Amino acid sequence: MLEELKKQVYEANMELVRQGLVIYTWGNVSGIDRASGLMVIKPSGVEYSELKPEDMVVTDLDGKVVEGKLKPSSDTMTHCALYKAYPELGGVVHTHSVYGVTFAQAGLPIPALGTTHADYFYGDIPCTRSLTAEELDAGYELNTGNVIIETLGDRDPLSCPGIVARNHGPFAWGKTPAGAVYHAVVLEKVAEMAYKTMTLNPDVYRAPQYLLDKHYFRKHGANATYGQGPNEDH
Amino acid sequence: MLEELKKQVYEANMELVRQGLVIYTWGNVSGIDRASGLMVIKPSGVEYSELKPEDMVVTDLDGKVVEGKLKPSSDTMTHCALYKAYPELGGVVHTHSVYGVTFAQAGLPIPALGTTHADYFYGDIPCTRSLTAEELDAGYELNTGNVIIETLGDRDPLSCPGIVARNHGPFAWGKTPAGAVYHAVVLEKVAEMAYKTMTLNPDVYRAPQYLLDKHYFRKHGANATYGQGPNEDH
Amino acid sequence: MLEELKKQVYEANMELVRQGLVIYTWGNVSGIDRASGLMVIKPSGVEYSELKPEDMVVTDLDGKVVEGKLKPSSDTMTHCALYKAYPELGGVVHTHSVYGVTFAQAGLPIPALGTTHADYFYGDIPCTRSLTAEELDAGYELNTGNVIIETLGDRDPLSCPGIVARNHGPFAWGKTPAGAVYHAVVLEKVAEMAYKTMTLNPDVYRAPQYLLDKHYFRKHGANATYGQGPNEDH
Amino acid sequence: MLEELKKQVYEANMELVRQGLVIYTWGNVSGIDRASGLMVIKPSGVEYSELKPEDMVVTDLDGKVVEGKLKPSSDTMTHCALYKAYPELGGVVHTHSVYGVTFAQAGLPIPALGTTHADYFYGDIPCTRSLTAEELDAGYELNTGNVIIETLGDRDPLSCPGIVARNHGPFAWGKTPAGAVYHAVVLEKVAEMAYKTMTLNPDVYRAPQYLLDKHYFRKHGANATYGQGPNEDH
Repeated sequence: MLEELKKQVYEANMELVRQGLVIYTWGNVSGIDRASGLMVIKPSGVEYSELKPEDMVVTDLDGKVVEGKLKPSSDTMTHCALYKAYPELGGVVHTHSVYGVTFAQAGLPIPALGTTHADYFYGDIPCTRSLTAEELDAGYELNTGNVIIETLGDRDPLSCPGIVARNHGPFAWGKTPAGAVYHAVVLEKVAEMAYKTMTLNPDVYRAPQYLLDKHYFRKHGANATYGQGPNEDH
Repeated sequence: MLEELKKQVYEANMELVRQGLVIYTWGNVSGIDRASGLMVIKPSGVEYSELKPEDMVVTDLDGKVVEGKLKPSSDTMTHCALYKAYPELGGVVHTHSVYGVTFAQAGLPIPALGTTHADYFYGDIPCTRSLTAEELDAGYELNTGNVIIETLGDRDPLSCPGIVARNHGPFAWGKTPAGAVYHAVVLEKVAEMAYKTMTLNPDVYRAPQYLLDKHYFRKHGANATYGQGPNEDH
Repeated sequence: MLEELKKQVYEANMELVRQGLVIYTWGNVSGIDRASGLMVIKPSGVEYSELKPEDMVVTDLDGKVVEGKLKPSSDTMTHCALYKAYPELGGVVHTHSVYGVTFAQAGLPIPALGTTHADYFYGDIPCTRSLTAEELDAGYELNTGNVIIETLGDRDPLSCPGIVARNHGPFAWGKTPAGAVYHAVVLEKVAEMAYKTMTLNPDVYRAPQYLLDKHYFRKHGANATYGQGPNEDH
Repeated sequence: MLEELKKQVYEANMELVRQGLVIYTWGNVSGIDRASGLMVIKPSGVEYSELKPEDMVVTDLDGKVVEGKLKPSSDTMTHCALYKAYPELGGVVHTHSVYGVTFAQAGLPIPALGTTHADYFYGDIPCTRSLTAEELDAGYELNTGNVIIETLGDRDPLSCPGIVARNHGPFAWGKTPAGAVYHAVVLEKVAEMAYKTMTLNPDVYRAPQYLLDKHYFRKHGANATYGQGPNEDH
């Protein structure tokens, strides 16, 4: 069942390790098959060193297991919420990468300080508010998804393909599982650059909007000129 | 004698190197056989690149060598104190990992700033007070263990599986030697995240208690839901 | 066409990856054949893991493609501007290396704080001003080259073989493509040292001029004594 | 001539690369044969990737080449000054390692903040004063050695086996070339720990003297108990 997607999701999970974004069990990637409305996700608490493609779990978008011998990731309902809200998404990822967590713990957005950021993220990468105790009790993982959606508001999720969840860590997404991981890597790198910029010069803020526009639209949308193809968005 | 435990302790020592927590001779792992009350520990001052399983030293809980041609780690009495005070421990580790030492030298606890921390440590990771000159003279290594025990107070040691010793460095523990090393890796990573959070935003403090509770109890205790088994504590 | 130069430019691009200065598509190296006035440059948006020597694109100094099936780097016109202004250059490189970007985003020059810097760069490594919206609209990449030239003023480009472009990142150059990459590595390393010095001691400033002179002229110019040959400038 | 020492010096130079203390040509190690009073040192400006044991240069303690086809390191006279002043030294090393340079550029000693430091260095690792312009003109490399000797004053050089030279970088030494490199690695690591401690808690200062004494004398001198042998000083 969904063997090709399982392989993609497995590969995207392993890429997290190769890129240094996770240790032990600290992250998960999912992918969705929009035709059937089914999601493939990493099993809960399995270390990457022991993970196999056939361990991937198939669930519906309410988190019910449809196929698989293992329990799905404890963050399953967060992934579900994002896929339901945003039909353009094909992959979602969560990590505890160091600089993403740093901004999540500091309660700060990752500001758009330069062109590295603007090549992929249009505007600041927001930090969600804290969940209330009531929201947490009512459904922690689902409401983590909901507060991400609330925070993005009317922004196009593919123009801001990641966020940091307050006191928790980064989530990222894309058109495919590999694209989601790509954006998680970019988020971590621009977070590192922002951390170093802000500790070097605490008075710094955003790059000029016309420079951010130039870089974002050089790579995205109808008038993109970057790269070799008509549209290389992830 | 205790060949299987020697192998485990040797492997746990070598894992410190693979995880980047030690260079040269800067760390040691022990394990205990509760049936006989004997401890297996790394020999003193032997570099990891030359370490072999048969070099491991067997001592009793007063630090007396029972088997082995080499002298045991100079920190042997600290390990003994922890095993005597806490019957639930199966492994103990000491390192000079960079971020753990940073908090030890700064004289600060590692605050519970987020979910990465809360997944393993319930509450702040404390920093011990300094030993007095008298305590140091009376038995430096034994009293290092005693001040760790004093600092933990009535906390369950497995809910706080590590600490930083003032001006010295981290100690960690677990149900097995491998579990102790696992917690030493986690301590170092959450210390790194805390360092970066606090230098980015000096006003930051602890995550909401209900969020810390949620993550800790999602992975630990009778109502844990994380992972594939009934209880995956290290 | 220009097969030897293509190989050099390809190798210099791959060296960026080995030195940890780029991930994905985040950088480009070019080389010039002064006899024909033609430039060889990395194609746009091709990941380093898939790059081959025959993918290199040949252009003239107005950025017109002379040979190659792929589109040249989106930064082609910046390279062209530098080659036109400075006949002594044989290679140019652009990266998004972390510490170079940090200074670019902070809007600060990399100050000449010590001998590591002075061995290669005579004086501070400047940070350009921002382009105006008008300059950006009139030709972003070309004017990025022009503002670099404006910022260098009457400095000899080989005595300051790199710069950071405001809110963007580092450009570096040399007598050859390999020399340009060498200077990009040095710029990143001295930027890292300057970042750490300035966060440790915010009151610090430049090393004594006679020390900077000593180190620079020990390695460069007619009276150089460093190394084995008459002139080992890159 | 001195083939065994050449091999040791070559190996010690290559260890700098493996330990991540140098890139390109940014460091040099020497060793001395006290019987003949001759020194073996890395040649000037040769990259580590191309270095061979037979490239090592033999000089006397005035820096005159006695054997070798290549020019000796430009820092030769600094090494000579240290060997002349301190008969107990068998190896000397200079690097541009990042954290050592950070303290050199910040003009600050590396304070004795904890036991990692105290295990090898008895007291702060000093930072020399700047050379005056006159001292520099009169003999830069020789006077770099002299200001190191002036700064150490009546300290035993083996109880403080390294220093940072103002605006320049670290020098370290030991009983052998390998011991010198060992101390250069330790200096870099304790400098990293001190940097992170001081940026986390700017009010921090030295560990209690009795703790520093305990750790230093546990490993050094007549009453040392650490390790397997009677005296394992490097």
